[in-house]
Amino acid sequence: MRLGIDIGGTKTDAVAVDESGDLRQRVRLATGFGHAAVVETAVTAVARIGELTGLPAGGFDSIGIGIPGMVDSASGDVAHAVNLGVERLELGGELAGRLGVGVRVENDVKAAALGAYHLLGLGGTMAYLNLGTGMAAGIVVDGRLWRGASGIAGEIGHLPVDPAGALCACGQRGCIETTASGSAIARQWPTDDPFPARALYAAAAAGDTEARVIAGRLAEGIASAVRVLVLTVDVEHVVIGGGLSHLGERLLSDVHEVLEEWGRTSPFLASLALPRRVRLVPEGSPVAALGAALVGGY
Amino acid sequence: MRLGIDIGGTKTDAVAVDESGDLRQRVRLATGFGHAAVVETAVTAVARIGELTGLPAGGFDSIGIGIPGMVDSASGDVAHAVNLGVERLELGGELAGRLGVGVRVENDVKAAALGAYHLLGLGGTMAYLNLGTGMAAGIVVDGRLWRGASGIAGEIGHLPVDPAGALCACGQRGCIETTASGSAIARQWPTDDPFPARALYAAAAAGDTEARVIAGRLAEGIASAVRVLVLTVDVEHVVIGGGLSHLGERLLSDVHEVLEEWGRTSPFLASLALPRRVRLVPEGSPVAALGAALVGGY
Repeated sequence: MRLGIDIGGTKTDAVAVDESGDLRQRVRLATGFGHAAVVETAVTAVARIGELTGLPAGGFDSIGIGIPGMVDSASGDVAHAVNLGVERLELGGELAGRLGVGVRVENDVKAAALGAYHLLGLGGTMAYLNLGTGMAAGIVVDGRLWRGASGIAGEIGHLPVDPAGALCACGQRGCIETTASGSAIARQWPTDDPFPARALYAAAAAGDTEARVIAGRLAEGIASAVRVLVLTVDVEHVVIGGGLSHLGERLLSDVHEVLEEWGRTSPFLASLALPRRVRLVPEGSPVAALGAALVGGY
Repeated sequence: MRLGIDIGGTKTDAVAVDESGDLRQRVRLATGFGHAAVVETAVTAVARIGELTGLPAGGFDSIGIGIPGMVDSASGDVAHAVNLGVERLELGGELAGRLGVGVRVENDVKAAALGAYHLLGLGGTMAYLNLGTGMAAGIVVDGRLWRGASGIAGEIGHLPVDPAGALCACGQRGCIETTASGSAIARQWPTDDPFPARALYAAAAAGDTEARVIAGRLAEGIASAVRVLVLTVDVEHVVIGGGLSHLGERLLSDVHEVLEEWGRTSPFLASLALPRRVRLVPEGSPVAALGAALVGGY
């Protein structure tokens, strides 16, 4: 049995999976804020899954953590996990000390990529396109994470596609993330709705012209990300996940429409069958925690 | 001993390399036009290298061909090698019939990528950025070609970066190739010089404002390609080759300048050390033929 923990900005998701990678137990709890509280959250998650499975920390084949920010997967160090109040934390080392067993730590998007790959039973190459506050992709090749030379593979949200676009937090202008991310929607469509993208889609469906323009930019930005992933890595599958993926089939259909429109003016793009490569991650599935459980073994 | 042949639009380059991958013999000849003449060119190249090495076709450990166009490396079939007058040619099969031994066929940019990787003694991940009539990259991972799910990995020349850019032959607008390729220079800077980019650079050096703008776009386009390769695949090295690479150190210095300027407004980009990842392929080295010789063994 493997244990995986996804430490998110507000809640933490922990799962136990068996040898076949099937989900056996799942626990959700609130995430603490700050270094000590984040470590405590992980320790509590291990204990709760331990109660359900009857296994002590040392009884699992592996324990893996997915967490936002810059993660050094070799050392288990985490940096810049801003939403968790973590500037620099030796998470792997601290947890090993508390639990008495080794723990693997991975960036949450990369962990989710691995989880989605296994959950969907994919083979070959896949990109998991995470549409959260920002945009980033996790790339899986033949069942293994592709980290690249310096660990920044898949940071496609910061590829500029329009010199006249909005200024990005990264200092560049017109990055894909400035139109296709949670922060892009929040900036362009101020609302009290806790899920601004849902409010945006509702307004667009009701005929609001500006909402339609913003929703159109969102779909185009996602389509641009798909094009980047295919023309560079040539991934067979692009799986859309993250907060904005809760828009569901409407979002997927908008992205498909953009890709099909592009194919009508470019026979080259049409030949790549981009729409067929894109799908949504299954709603409600704990892909990040599942992937975290698998990180230890891959 | 391995034999590699690079079939180019006007000339063909053939080499024999020894077990260490060192160049032992080299022959250059004119490329024939059309299906039969292309096959004949390859057969002649094998014979000429055979005379120099004293080896019959069956005496080489492998024979590999690099050729422009869409190449099915599994079957040896070639399609759309327009400059060679080849629409669809079973090159691998025809050559096997003529030579009595198996022959590996690979796209010329991919072969050159493999050749550059070995010539420069690189490790890890590398992209060979070919600036020919068009722009495309060949990606090498741990010494092996990265082909992707459908063989189009590295076709980054057709990633749009400016909605207001020029119309591309592929049907899209503002592709990187519309500013950073031989065809882009020829379109923007009409001249009788057989090497329009050299004429462009000379005019820019002499103070011509328009030439400076076009040369600036060229450097920015190449820098954009580097950014795409690093933020997606996270390659450690980008090696610039192809016709435009003959502009040499001046081109490299212009590209470095753009990347450094970007780093000044984006701490994120600056942290990626992009300028340090970029270099030129050594002038005059037969990387494509060398890579073709290695294709059979990798």
